[in-house]
Amino acid sequence: MNLQRRALAEFLGTALLVAIVVGSGIMAQSLSPGNIGLQLLENSTATVFGLGVLIAVLGPISGAHFNPVVSLADWWHGRRDASGLSLKSAVIYIAAQIVGGVGGSILANAMFAKPVVSWSTTDRSAPHLWIGEVVATTGLIVVIFCLVRAGRAAYAPVVVASYIGAAYWFTSSTSFANPAVTIGRIFSDSFAGIAPASAPAFLVAQLVGGVLGLLLVAGLIGRTPAEAPAHAVQ
Amino acid sequence: MNLQRRALAEFLGTALLVAIVVGSGIMAQSLSPGNIGLQLLENSTATVFGLGVLIAVLGPISGAHFNPVVSLADWWHGRRDASGLSLKSAVIYIAAQIVGGVGGSILANAMFAKPVVSWSTTDRSAPHLWIGEVVATTGLIVVIFCLVRAGRAAYAPVVVASYIGAAYWFTSSTSFANPAVTIGRIFSDSFAGIAPASAPAFLVAQLVGGVLGLLLVAGLIGRTPAEAPAHAVQ
Amino acid sequence: MNLQRRALAEFLGTALLVAIVVGSGIMAQSLSPGNIGLQLLENSTATVFGLGVLIAVLGPISGAHFNPVVSLADWWHGRRDASGLSLKSAVIYIAAQIVGGVGGSILANAMFAKPVVSWSTTDRSAPHLWIGEVVATTGLIVVIFCLVRAGRAAYAPVVVASYIGAAYWFTSSTSFANPAVTIGRIFSDSFAGIAPASAPAFLVAQLVGGVLGLLLVAGLIGRTPAEAPAHAVQ
Amino acid sequence: MNLQRRALAEFLGTALLVAIVVGSGIMAQSLSPGNIGLQLLENSTATVFGLGVLIAVLGPISGAHFNPVVSLADWWHGRRDASGLSLKSAVIYIAAQIVGGVGGSILANAMFAKPVVSWSTTDRSAPHLWIGEVVATTGLIVVIFCLVRAGRAAYAPVVVASYIGAAYWFTSSTSFANPAVTIGRIFSDSFAGIAPASAPAFLVAQLVGGVLGLLLVAGLIGRTPAEAPAHAVQ
Repeated sequence: MNLQRRALAEFLGTALLVAIVVGSGIMAQSLSPGNIGLQLLENSTATVFGLGVLIAVLGPISGAHFNPVVSLADWWHGRRDASGLSLKSAVIYIAAQIVGGVGGSILANAMFAKPVVSWSTTDRSAPHLWIGEVVATTGLIVVIFCLVRAGRAAYAPVVVASYIGAAYWFTSSTSFANPAVTIGRIFSDSFAGIAPASAPAFLVAQLVGGVLGLLLVAGLIGRTPAEAPAHAVQ
Repeated sequence: MNLQRRALAEFLGTALLVAIVVGSGIMAQSLSPGNIGLQLLENSTATVFGLGVLIAVLGPISGAHFNPVVSLADWWHGRRDASGLSLKSAVIYIAAQIVGGVGGSILANAMFAKPVVSWSTTDRSAPHLWIGEVVATTGLIVVIFCLVRAGRAAYAPVVVASYIGAAYWFTSSTSFANPAVTIGRIFSDSFAGIAPASAPAFLVAQLVGGVLGLLLVAGLIGRTPAEAPAHAVQ
Repeated sequence: MNLQRRALAEFLGTALLVAIVVGSGIMAQSLSPGNIGLQLLENSTATVFGLGVLIAVLGPISGAHFNPVVSLADWWHGRRDASGLSLKSAVIYIAAQIVGGVGGSILANAMFAKPVVSWSTTDRSAPHLWIGEVVATTGLIVVIFCLVRAGRAAYAPVVVASYIGAAYWFTSSTSFANPAVTIGRIFSDSFAGIAPASAPAFLVAQLVGGVLGLLLVAGLIGRTPAEAPAHAVQ
Repeated sequence: MNLQRRALAEFLGTALLVAIVVGSGIMAQSLSPGNIGLQLLENSTATVFGLGVLIAVLGPISGAHFNPVVSLADWWHGRRDASGLSLKSAVIYIAAQIVGGVGGSILANAMFAKPVVSWSTTDRSAPHLWIGEVVATTGLIVVIFCLVRAGRAAYAPVVVASYIGAAYWFTSSTSFANPAVTIGRIFSDSFAGIAPASAPAFLVAQLVGGVLGLLLVAGLIGRTPAEAPAHAVQ
């Protein structure tokens, strides 16, 4: 698959992922006013379904990373035997993901007749939320790379989506776990948004989680070469 | 499989799809009065389960289109190498789907002791809803044809149903994304109905989405022949 | 597998199915008082999970009928080429199912500190509910026998459970669709119960649905011999 | 796989399982105050997703027991033909599970800015709850060992998680069914906690359920040797 099509898939997948998170957040907020628990249940259910679909559909094209931490980990994990992304591909993936993340918020805003570009005012700054983000991202990396190393990458659509479905609820931060999605969610003043000032600490926590995740994978499985290259997650 | 059985499967599948959407909508409205968010969660959950079952059960017979946009896209996509529906088959499919859609509303009305034929009074006319329908149908076509082109049509019951589960929530229109279902839902004055005057714009948006979907598939995968004919979605 | 073990599996499976339906109904009624929609969502979600598990676990032993209509249809459908249950086995299956159904209510009552044997006082008598039961049972038979005839019986745990998840909501009767379960649910005065006087009409509707279901299967697939005997649903 | 990595997987899996149960319980309690039914739906949904992921990801390493009753049953069931855990391995598994269970509560407390170690004050002492625990654990053992004996261990992630999803609702105790998780949940004063004084009776009930479960498996399948060793549940 050529890099252009793969970048298109990463752009489109990240855009739709953010559109799903933000759009279903707006819908939930509008239909279940005053019931935040129900809103999060609606929001997380829609995200589980949508993320699973995106991985199943776009995985054969780009590997369905939709997440700079995953692309970086893929490059790092496979750098010795070239089983992962090249550094150049990783950079292009990450650019496509970030542009896609912002585009997804814009699309959601347009679908729900909101100002097309807006800034979130949802403050998410607290040490326990950062712990949540570290845990959420560590878990995501462990899930993806253990699956790949065990030759079970075909289960990724269900397993990764299910992981996010759990992490929405068991981490205090509702599991952003994704820098491109975090940046995208800055651009929507809604249930699922994150204020610009809260974003940098989330990004740092996500990178820390990525490193911890790779260390845990090494502890669980060791450093033998992957059975399948991680950029072919599907 | 002869065309008669396939048309019966398309009629039955579309009828049951509409009966599921409308019936569970009536049930939700009746059991969760005043809580529209919960109603939509009940309605969308029932639809995900039901649509997945219909595709799994009737897919081997007709391909489980249940949707004129899908049948048209299948004909168009496969017209050069005759890998899709013939134009004659597509016309028969679409007729069976539309008659089924109307029949499904009638069946739901009968099961819930409503006037057997009624007209919806739910107005759904607004530009942002039309954007929602375009996005919903574009996504549906991308999902189906990317799966088929990747040789993953066997996953269609889970993936297509999950897509609708997400699209109910992340599109502003709750994702009709299907002209036969839209026409059927005119005939039920309930939660899931659509007023006759709102339907034509939805149909246009769905056709636009169908075209955009095929263009995106071409951008993502190219125009090489399908690995499996799209009328064998299952 | 000898008939004794198969009968034990049918007894156990039907008992647990009723314990799941009745038990989760009691739990839902207790935790979500006054919110019938949420109660039904909790009840149906638990049933989907539990029924899928029972079919996956006990299917390899007995075929996981848990339902006299399914056992009768299996005998009838396979009587010419002896691909289904023998009449003697069908009678034993049905006896085990009915005893199991009653036992399941007793077990649920014991777990929730209710009088161990009680009579339901939930009236469910109305023509539109009977239409619902006919539709629910017709659909169940179509789902099971189309799967088996298409060589897809391995999907039964997910597909049959999903079907019930939809039918809870889109049929007006909440889809009993099972005489043994109906008889069992007489013995619990709770959310999921059915008054003794309402049961006979439900049983008749279920039998009618069974016949209609077999007719529809013949219309959809014809009468060629099954690829796999229906008592090996798993 | 060496025992050290397997113990790490058991520690990590049990810790995350408890973090998921306790963390999503705290989140649910916080977002849906006063609506216990909705809290349990949120809590059980997150647990189904999370448990399925843990089994899928860690199963290839340790068998994904995360539960002393399962490890004991595995040793007992396979002790004649050495197809299960050795006694030494079982002891190490159980130690890792218990330490993990406590660690999971601590992690959840830290993520939600609660006192890192606290004692639950949730009283769960009543005979009908003990019946619930016996039923829940019996069912769990039947599910796992019937799957393994039928050569269907690959379905464990979905089937075991679904079983817990049903058992949360159909057993009066909400199905702890796991001594390590029970001990872990002592250390969180939240929705999902259990007071220290209530725990011993739960542990006894779980062991009784383990024995009953193995007896039922023998009744359903007999004592022929397992097709696959139970420590390779995945």
